[in-house]
Amino acid sequence: MLFKQITILDGFCDTKKNMFVGIKNNKIDYIGTEAPTADYGEVYDGKNKLLMSGFFNSHAHSPMTLLRGYGENLSLQDWLTKRIFPFEDKLNDEAVYYATLLGIAESIRFGIVSSTDMYYFCDKMAQAILESGVKNNLSRGLTCFTDADLYDLTAWKESEELFKGYHGGGDGRLLVEMSLHAEYTSNPKIVRQFAEYTKKIGVGMHVHVSETKEEHEGCKSRHQGKTPVAYLNELGLFDSRTTAAHCVWVEDEDIDILLEKGVTVATCPVSNLKLASGICPVTKLLSAGIPVAIGTDSVSSNNSLNFIEEMKFFALLHKERQGDPTVITPQETIYAATRGGALGQGRNDTGLLEEGFRADLIVLDLSGPHMSPMHDLKNNLVYSASGSDVVLTMVDGKVLYKDGEYMTIDLEKVKFEAEKQKDRILSELSAGK
Amino acid sequence: MLFKQITILDGFCDTKKNMFVGIKNNKIDYIGTEAPTADYGEVYDGKNKLLMSGFFNSHAHSPMTLLRGYGENLSLQDWLTKRIFPFEDKLNDEAVYYATLLGIAESIRFGIVSSTDMYYFCDKMAQAILESGVKNNLSRGLTCFTDADLYDLTAWKESEELFKGYHGGGDGRLLVEMSLHAEYTSNPKIVRQFAEYTKKIGVGMHVHVSETKEEHEGCKSRHQGKTPVAYLNELGLFDSRTTAAHCVWVEDEDIDILLEKGVTVATCPVSNLKLASGICPVTKLLSAGIPVAIGTDSVSSNNSLNFIEEMKFFALLHKERQGDPTVITPQETIYAATRGGALGQGRNDTGLLEEGFRADLIVLDLSGPHMSPMHDLKNNLVYSASGSDVVLTMVDGKVLYKDGEYMTIDLEKVKFEAEKQKDRILSELSAGK
Repeated sequence: MLFKQITILDGFCDTKKNMFVGIKNNKIDYIGTEAPTADYGEVYDGKNKLLMSGFFNSHAHSPMTLLRGYGENLSLQDWLTKRIFPFEDKLNDEAVYYATLLGIAESIRFGIVSSTDMYYFCDKMAQAILESGVKNNLSRGLTCFTDADLYDLTAWKESEELFKGYHGGGDGRLLVEMSLHAEYTSNPKIVRQFAEYTKKIGVGMHVHVSETKEEHEGCKSRHQGKTPVAYLNELGLFDSRTTAAHCVWVEDEDIDILLEKGVTVATCPVSNLKLASGICPVTKLLSAGIPVAIGTDSVSSNNSLNFIEEMKFFALLHKERQGDPTVITPQETIYAATRGGALGQGRNDTGLLEEGFRADLIVLDLSGPHMSPMHDLKNNLVYSASGSDVVLTMVDGKVLYKDGEYMTIDLEKVKFEAEKQKDRILSELSAGK
Repeated sequence: MLFKQITILDGFCDTKKNMFVGIKNNKIDYIGTEAPTADYGEVYDGKNKLLMSGFFNSHAHSPMTLLRGYGENLSLQDWLTKRIFPFEDKLNDEAVYYATLLGIAESIRFGIVSSTDMYYFCDKMAQAILESGVKNNLSRGLTCFTDADLYDLTAWKESEELFKGYHGGGDGRLLVEMSLHAEYTSNPKIVRQFAEYTKKIGVGMHVHVSETKEEHEGCKSRHQGKTPVAYLNELGLFDSRTTAAHCVWVEDEDIDILLEKGVTVATCPVSNLKLASGICPVTKLLSAGIPVAIGTDSVSSNNSLNFIEEMKFFALLHKERQGDPTVITPQETIYAATRGGALGQGRNDTGLLEEGFRADLIVLDLSGPHMSPMHDLKNNLVYSASGSDVVLTMVDGKVLYKDGEYMTIDLEKVKFEAEKQKDRILSELSAGK
């Protein structure tokens, strides 16, 4: 595909107009002010359009689309025990498969090209990911409430099977990671064994860290005053490439550890507000030089995968919290949503619109009244754009979404099946099954 | 127009499916489960669509679209003195006319049927409002930094002319109000005269109150410890129907006054975050029974009029601030965005989808993946919908926006002229004119 006379945002978030961008196989082959001599096939008219890197959703539980809007305005305890856990208990292969496809459809509709995902029934998720053409760093969340060995846990066995069966699948689109659910859902022996195994097989690691104050303070009381970051680090968990989700309550000493270990913090601003968890100290993390990426968390605590909206929350919240409107620039926001997320996933070859990089790209329509006038495109993108301005999403050079059409997903069928699964589960729950 | 087999949200935010809604002249004439016997003309297929009240934007400065994305991440002082004031100094009739039309186009694109607006060059704004078909409570912001009499001020003369020339225009679509910019931009004599005049002519009143901590504390030091609410009330300002914008720093005693005087608080969550002003204590206001409505403030501190997004900020911020995910329900959010805003504008005949009410309505597309599955429509509307899901906006029974088309506005021309005015102003500024 050749994008013709299109506006682009370069790696410095500077706007370049009337550019030509040629895609060859799965890569960005040409970027220039002149039409290329090579033939790239289909020509895309770039008038009133922006071409940029797609978004990387750095913390997700994709199949939870099925719980969208189920159990609102409840206390965390009621939400978990009366809604989430009983509903999840009724999930099955088919439910997770369609729920994942629904999440993927929503993702590409909002410009997400790759997600860092943690859930279970992961073989069904892998199937949906491979079929639909997106990228995903997928992990089976592991918990342990007994004194069992790691290698006796079903979750570990499923993790290993997932790794052996799918890691690197779809020409590297699907990367399998290991995920420890959290400090409070495991124990020191498990964490140590888990850290060793993850390091041995050499994959990324995904963990929830200091999401709530209760979790953070609880860890300190359980483990001789150690914060979750200090405790997990001491057990070797951060020796693998790590995505630490949330980090709302991290302390100054934690920041030193995160920096030293090169941990990517996946901040989830909307979810943290919605569950009243708090606000991640993103300005401190960025000042310290810690890689920060952005996640939606699950749809049940968001309740969408509207990544442009998530960027706006990211860009605004910290201004108020710090009492300083100068913090969190549009550049920092766009970087966290694109390149920062890609690097957090260990995908060094994407997240930037540069020659030689993977063609994981999106096109935004700039013609809406809310994008006019155009003083500075990056400002309009972060503060003014609507999630639905995304009109094309491409992964590895393949168009997955364009103008309301889903090239690899039968959306009507997926919605129908998701609704059916939702109804089945609700009916089983109400029958007390 | 007859909306056929459409989903509606009733006044209690309950979902009703397969409804028929007939519009006759400017009113909702029929709502029922059966097709009406009367002929309502054009039939609108309601499949996968939601019909509900349009949104009321309770605090706006519409012509500031021209400053969208101009001057980001600056301190409040730099933003005002280096960007906003010099730019505004170059505005003229033509600039304000097109900038207002641009704001109106964006408003109807995002489902706003009526705005409570404060600015200057108001005759040009009135012209744009009347031509485009929207509703507006329009006021000329008044400031006074001298010891002049109210009746000698240009701003007052313009307010009076506006009132005489336009109040009730467009069959009541355009209501003229009086607006005192704020406590810190006026003095006691002016406030008292202004309050008396407003009461005498019997119109609504619009004022900025306690937006920043500096303003709030400054007022107390200027006026014997009185807060802006106490000070303005003492001078009689709230004796007229009042919209008090922001109210971020109001104290408990202020809440008693606001309640007693029936003041509508227009909270502007996005703008207050972006300028790092703070967070309005909405939960306290609602508990006290104070009418709360939602405003975008100007596009230069938002930077959009995406009202569904604004609702999400409104619904989420206070959960975190209060440490309680149960506060601010979807019902409260929808009410503040619709009926609460209408009542704040003194428009008792709109803001609800009920027979006999004005047909100020919007249609949302429910077919996107982000609206599926549907556990509860009101939850999806507040937490999951995208601003661009609005596909039709109707004011007084007349369709103003439908599927990307603007029936009363030449959007391409408006965008062109807005861009031209922006360029003119920037060029004059850079030439030091």
